[in-house]
Amino acid sequence: MDFKNLLAERTSVMGASAIREILKVVSQPGMVSLAGGIPAPQSFPMSIIKGLTEKVIKKYSSGAFQYDLTEGFMPLQEQLSILLSQRGIKAEPDEINISSGSQGVLDAVAKILISKGDKIAVEAPTYLGAISAFNPYQPKYIRMDTDDYGLIPKSLDKILLEHEIKFIYLVPTFQNPTGRTIPMNRREQIAQIIIKHKALLVEDDPYSALRYKGEYVPSIKTLAPLNVVYVSTLSKIFAPGLRLGFFTAPELIRKWLVLVKQGTDLHTSTFNQALAAEYLEGGYLKQHLPTILDLYKPKQEAMLNAINRYFPKEFKCSPSEGGMFLWVEGPKGVDMEKIYFKALEKKVAFVPGRFFYTNSNEGIETMRLNYTMSDEKTIDNAIKTLGDVMQEEQYR
Amino acid sequence: MDFKNLLAERTSVMGASAIREILKVVSQPGMVSLAGGIPAPQSFPMSIIKGLTEKVIKKYSSGAFQYDLTEGFMPLQEQLSILLSQRGIKAEPDEINISSGSQGVLDAVAKILISKGDKIAVEAPTYLGAISAFNPYQPKYIRMDTDDYGLIPKSLDKILLEHEIKFIYLVPTFQNPTGRTIPMNRREQIAQIIIKHKALLVEDDPYSALRYKGEYVPSIKTLAPLNVVYVSTLSKIFAPGLRLGFFTAPELIRKWLVLVKQGTDLHTSTFNQALAAEYLEGGYLKQHLPTILDLYKPKQEAMLNAINRYFPKEFKCSPSEGGMFLWVEGPKGVDMEKIYFKALEKKVAFVPGRFFYTNSNEGIETMRLNYTMSDEKTIDNAIKTLGDVMQEEQYR
Repeated sequence: MDFKNLLAERTSVMGASAIREILKVVSQPGMVSLAGGIPAPQSFPMSIIKGLTEKVIKKYSSGAFQYDLTEGFMPLQEQLSILLSQRGIKAEPDEINISSGSQGVLDAVAKILISKGDKIAVEAPTYLGAISAFNPYQPKYIRMDTDDYGLIPKSLDKILLEHEIKFIYLVPTFQNPTGRTIPMNRREQIAQIIIKHKALLVEDDPYSALRYKGEYVPSIKTLAPLNVVYVSTLSKIFAPGLRLGFFTAPELIRKWLVLVKQGTDLHTSTFNQALAAEYLEGGYLKQHLPTILDLYKPKQEAMLNAINRYFPKEFKCSPSEGGMFLWVEGPKGVDMEKIYFKALEKKVAFVPGRFFYTNSNEGIETMRLNYTMSDEKTIDNAIKTLGDVMQEEQYR
Repeated sequence: MDFKNLLAERTSVMGASAIREILKVVSQPGMVSLAGGIPAPQSFPMSIIKGLTEKVIKKYSSGAFQYDLTEGFMPLQEQLSILLSQRGIKAEPDEINISSGSQGVLDAVAKILISKGDKIAVEAPTYLGAISAFNPYQPKYIRMDTDDYGLIPKSLDKILLEHEIKFIYLVPTFQNPTGRTIPMNRREQIAQIIIKHKALLVEDDPYSALRYKGEYVPSIKTLAPLNVVYVSTLSKIFAPGLRLGFFTAPELIRKWLVLVKQGTDLHTSTFNQALAAEYLEGGYLKQHLPTILDLYKPKQEAMLNAINRYFPKEFKCSPSEGGMFLWVEGPKGVDMEKIYFKALEKKVAFVPGRFFYTNSNEGIETMRLNYTMSDEKTIDNAIKTLGDVMQEEQYR
């Protein structure tokens, strides 16, 4: 009696994740993993965290440990309103809601919008966590074309002409998995296209604060405020383990997202929200962010330099000015999964890129490399190892 | 452009909650609310909370703020294994998973099991939060009969004979809304019935630690371990704002629940899980629980005494030995919603009982009264006011 017969239809289509299987070996001792997607623990503001907890307990007392509104903890909503205004997004505190990580918003968006078979438009490649949030609601994915500068606007326009699309999902800045950023002129075109088609865009923006070079590019939300669900998180600029995401969205959508959240987790941890409110209100983010950037910038540089030095020249790296990942595309015919298994024998892991595509026959020759978790020397050695494996694979 | 046209079919059936509307006035100044369902802030272990945060930061350092496994934070899983063994439930640490409140489990259970139109069996009345977790997946509710001693086993047997039931949902101990507890002999019958029918029971057990009198009754999970998803929470014995629930379930169901949680919120706050692990490991729950019981026991007594003294004798209160609620049933013909509005004028609020029924024409003459949030004197006065309103209503 295993109750398999009781599973819902949606469960049978979800299946076990192939990437989970392939990445199981990554935590073996001695393995250098460029496969993860997690911030360096050195990026957390550990020196002030004890002080923050003391302040919160003193300031809010039992209020920080009590049930709170589904909408969010008001002092955090107030601080996020200020943060968003610095990003050029106008939202009153009560127009910003808190979620349990940005994952919580992606699940809620899917829950209120996707009926089985509904179409949603995603980049190729796209963020895997979004796919695992959307899958249980059984959408049909319509893939949009991308290049080194992210989504190609014409591809979006064509798709919105040809299909009824429930929503478009984009990570426009330092995308996961590619590290790419959609430049301003494309953002303006994308904004015009979604306004023209009365389309809804879910703009996922976890990384934009992690810029190591180049010019700041405003979010699409600033260009088409009435058409965008803007989703962000404190995971990369405070601490991911606290599970703090937030969003602001067109009124009706926002209200449904809150209602749905009530059935999913009632509300996000009050204590953690209070810690974040204090982190922002005390100016600690502003103080601490340069430390995070100083930590990651040389790692990204080390990886870019090593790729240029060690990878065969047919393996091209997408330009990237921030975030946590680099994306490499090998020449046609290369099977990056083969390279993955050969590299594993030499104790280096990454993620073969095909897992980030909704069409399983795409991306065979691509790879995602994470640079936040290793030091520069380790990154250099690991990339050299990968380069050696690529050489062997190519000229055998 | 409000995007109403984009809402999924499930969203249209969810609708705004009538109880939300009716309870909007409850937070008015001067209102005595017996309507809530939240623990008294005096029940939180505030005197040790600063020490707990210091210990956790020292012990786990950045590990308490990093991403963690979806399954749960291992030190908490270990502590919960001990807690469950004290409740007679055998579960290894890795067979216990953590959720963002028990609400998170109810959502996940519904997500993996309910296809539109599937039948699930619920008590009449039942816990409202469960209904709001289940509703988005569009089940059909099959109501089971209850009396002062909770679910009537024969009713369950009949329903399992006549219907294909995906799962049964029960709060067997100090139920919300009724405060009732299913006695041991009925639990044994229920266990036999679900084993006989190879049925799956979701046993929601948030309150069993809050016993003010009478004998401990073991969970149904101990009687039919292979048929029960056992769900519990630290909200009532630690702090609800930390959003910490947990569950143990038949293997296949448990694995799917974890997989689904990955798409919903990746994992529950690491820091909060570490705080709970420390709370349990340090023996603080054992030390602190008597304080919680000493706080609530006189409140429950005060309410029971006041009901006996002030309510017309036709208004009967269900026996209850613990939890947070008392349940009163008036004589046929009484419209408790009318009494609600009259009581509001006199600044006393409660929840009319009909909101806890899945059939909207049931429970017209019932009410739920919460006693955790007010002091004994206030409870006495409020019940007197309600008694006066009932008298007026009945003999006008």
